[in-house]
Amino acid sequence: MSPSVDPRTGAELPAIASDTTEEALDALCDSATRSGVELARLGRHGRARMLEAMADALEQRRERIVETANRETALGAGRLDGELTRTTYQLRLFADVLREGSYLEAVVDHAGQSAMGPRPDVRRILRPIGSVAVFGASNFPLAFSVPGGDTASALAAGCPVVAKAHPLHPATSVLAHEALAAGATAAGLEAAPVSLVFGVEAGGALVRHASIQAVGFTGSLGVGRLLADSAAARPSPIPFYGELGALNAVVVLPGAAAGRPDQIAQGLAASFMLGVGQFCTKPGLVLVPAGADGSRLVDELVSSVAASTPGVMLGPDIARHFAERAAVIASQPGVSVLASSSHAVDPRSSSGTPVVVRAEAGALRGVVLEECFGPLLVVATYEGPDQLASLLDLVGPGLTATVHGEPVETAEAGGILEVLAGRVGRLVWNGYPTGVAVCWAMHHGGPYPATTSSLHTSVGATAIRRWLRPVAYQDVPDMLLPEELREEPSPDARVPRRVDGVLVVPG
Amino acid sequence: MSPSVDPRTGAELPAIASDTTEEALDALCDSATRSGVELARLGRHGRARMLEAMADALEQRRERIVETANRETALGAGRLDGELTRTTYQLRLFADVLREGSYLEAVVDHAGQSAMGPRPDVRRILRPIGSVAVFGASNFPLAFSVPGGDTASALAAGCPVVAKAHPLHPATSVLAHEALAAGATAAGLEAAPVSLVFGVEAGGALVRHASIQAVGFTGSLGVGRLLADSAAARPSPIPFYGELGALNAVVVLPGAAAGRPDQIAQGLAASFMLGVGQFCTKPGLVLVPAGADGSRLVDELVSSVAASTPGVMLGPDIARHFAERAAVIASQPGVSVLASSSHAVDPRSSSGTPVVVRAEAGALRGVVLEECFGPLLVVATYEGPDQLASLLDLVGPGLTATVHGEPVETAEAGGILEVLAGRVGRLVWNGYPTGVAVCWAMHHGGPYPATTSSLHTSVGATAIRRWLRPVAYQDVPDMLLPEELREEPSPDARVPRRVDGVLVVPG
Repeated sequence: MSPSVDPRTGAELPAIASDTTEEALDALCDSATRSGVELARLGRHGRARMLEAMADALEQRRERIVETANRETALGAGRLDGELTRTTYQLRLFADVLREGSYLEAVVDHAGQSAMGPRPDVRRILRPIGSVAVFGASNFPLAFSVPGGDTASALAAGCPVVAKAHPLHPATSVLAHEALAAGATAAGLEAAPVSLVFGVEAGGALVRHASIQAVGFTGSLGVGRLLADSAAARPSPIPFYGELGALNAVVVLPGAAAGRPDQIAQGLAASFMLGVGQFCTKPGLVLVPAGADGSRLVDELVSSVAASTPGVMLGPDIARHFAERAAVIASQPGVSVLASSSHAVDPRSSSGTPVVVRAEAGALRGVVLEECFGPLLVVATYEGPDQLASLLDLVGPGLTATVHGEPVETAEAGGILEVLAGRVGRLVWNGYPTGVAVCWAMHHGGPYPATTSSLHTSVGATAIRRWLRPVAYQDVPDMLLPEELREEPSPDARVPRRVDGVLVVPG
Repeated sequence: MSPSVDPRTGAELPAIASDTTEEALDALCDSATRSGVELARLGRHGRARMLEAMADALEQRRERIVETANRETALGAGRLDGELTRTTYQLRLFADVLREGSYLEAVVDHAGQSAMGPRPDVRRILRPIGSVAVFGASNFPLAFSVPGGDTASALAAGCPVVAKAHPLHPATSVLAHEALAAGATAAGLEAAPVSLVFGVEAGGALVRHASIQAVGFTGSLGVGRLLADSAAARPSPIPFYGELGALNAVVVLPGAAAGRPDQIAQGLAASFMLGVGQFCTKPGLVLVPAGADGSRLVDELVSSVAASTPGVMLGPDIARHFAERAAVIASQPGVSVLASSSHAVDPRSSSGTPVVVRAEAGALRGVVLEECFGPLLVVATYEGPDQLASLLDLVGPGLTATVHGEPVETAEAGGILEVLAGRVGRLVWNGYPTGVAVCWAMHHGGPYPATTSSLHTSVGATAIRRWLRPVAYQDVPDMLLPEELREEPSPDARVPRRVDGVLVVPG
């Protein structure tokens, strides 16, 4: 692995691990398969305790993890502290999901008559698909990396994880992996349910490895598509759950621009510059009404950006790529720079200078409408609802779309939300898209390329569904059924089930 | 389209339609998009009524449809009559699924505090993905073709369907399409929610068409993989739900062989010869204990097959392919023919002669363990549980696996079922895999190549999940939410929901 550097100073950091060889990968995958048997034996309640033990083990290492991640990513101790809280919360949420048991989608159809004649007893449950690969993200060294939501949901499902460490935070990955291993040991496991690989080649080999049954990935469109194609081209193709980036459009309706121009401008500025613009949910485009109200909003946005301080990005390659990309966008015909931070930066650091550009309607295409990873926001104005509709037609799929409106303009807003609902996975009203709550209802995905599968994605309780597949049991004797499918399940095995078509929730 | 022939006589049948041109395909896809707006406007209850009207319209044409399908496929009036019943039953099942409403996976998380700080109000529901392509199967001209489960589940989801007619039953496809159109009109639709295309090239273009968002396919491994690869290689890849065939192993445990050798042999013979072996769930391999009991079972199987009458297959290409494949299997080292039907057949007909072969343990590989579409069954014997386990290790993924056992051998059976549960989508106990009940619990899929996605497949109530994607609404005002997500839904919009983590079923 090429050495990583401290993004604040450019100083080289100590090497953490060498690239995983093919033989080592085979051994890790074999061990993962053995661990799958143990995860099954633990059962739902045992796996819930294991996830909680992992959360505890992460907590015990909080200080070292946050410090290490901060040195490697420059995301800041406060943000990383919160991210670790998110990470342990995710693990505990999946413990709840396991205990509640709906995720099994248990269905019991007793034998009987149907319009097609006699019908056998058929019972259905979800089972783990096998070992899965998880690729850590650069921008979330914890919550979307080794100990993140992909890992938590896969382990909950009963699937061992082989995690690919991101090259920008190898030491954090090793520490997190240690914590997960300690949690597994505390829960009584012998084979490690999570293992760690390093290096680009090992990552590619992992996606092609015969024992891997699915992939979770958060990262760039380029790498993501390459790996997705590789997963689809296997002799036995496997699902690839990738989150590859999005524009995240924001629409400000006239009433909102009139009523709260400063507030929206400040909120938007904070949102697109949050974490130096390195969120997959960063707002990348705002559509503002032409005229005095919109101008006031844009003026306030310009002031906020001009007064901002450039932050340090995740690494030199990412900072250079952002600067290049921002320059390309600014040089498009019909695009002009409205403001950028005027603060000087240390040239040895991986700093990213916030920029806001204005694009004419005709310039809303190509690179201007693609995700720019970093603190850049495109502003465009519209004259009335018809032009707004036609501009929205130019915007491709995304993870989120946001609408700011006032109660008096809900009719218009309804039509816009309906159009946007067809293109994104989350609609935000009078808010900002950054900050993805971890809860049962959350969804973080959208039509390609926002995510490679818009059916099930990496955030929210249903993330577990990616690692499960149904099996139906026909006329199988009660004692040979999975416990949750038996006629009279033991108290621990009582889960919500659909029985003869009727959903029954245990009292 | 090349003309199809009467498989019973070899006589050419009248041409039904010419190949769909690229321009015509564009027009049909445009019309499908318009129809999607109407399907959304109908709502759940309106779409339920539409599906029932379609079932009624198929019933009204029952005689003509069965007669036409029988002429085109030679499957027999009795079987096709039952298949039409299955088809209308499927449509009505999805009307039930719509009215019940669980399929929406509605989740409401009210705003509140979490371990990560204040959390917004987030509500999640599933929405239709857009227009979908459905490829008709050769062997189910109704239940897995134009009016089949893929179409029923897609329309239920609110997704317009562009159906590719199978070249072996174009007239049946046209009649079924007329019935669906009549049902749609009766339900008040203006744009047709189902349209029909013909020809290999149009099928390929359909999978690549920008307006198509997913594909349902039942057919051969060769064609299926080609189309799956094409779906994955699109600029925006789309999910491809293919069912590509399986071996469907049957295990007879010693107690069962001792207790009911004749009954199992006769049941197995009937199952593998049913529909001239043209079921995707046809048992293709049976593992029988060595010794007297197993021999008696095999002897009875041989008698049944020797006394059988060859049936007419779906068409000359299919019959020729089966005969060639059977010859290749029979010529493998370690494989010998135990019996085949001794009845003469009309050489002009597309007849398929039932065959049962024995394979030594060493011959269980390659073509011997691949699906052979037609009435061929491979018999292998095992000496004790260890050899049984090692033979099972040779068997790849499948749609189903079947175990015959007696109550005294349930402990052994449990271990075998557990191994098989990792490889197939349905486990059958003391039964036969042909005959797939339509019910909430049914699952028809398995690891590749049984199906290209083992998450969600074409049979059972959850087939609808393939055509839906989640959207989360964050802080969206109540009146702008989908009705099922509102704080106080109207009586028609009350569906099972998870509210703040708790599953609530309307009383």
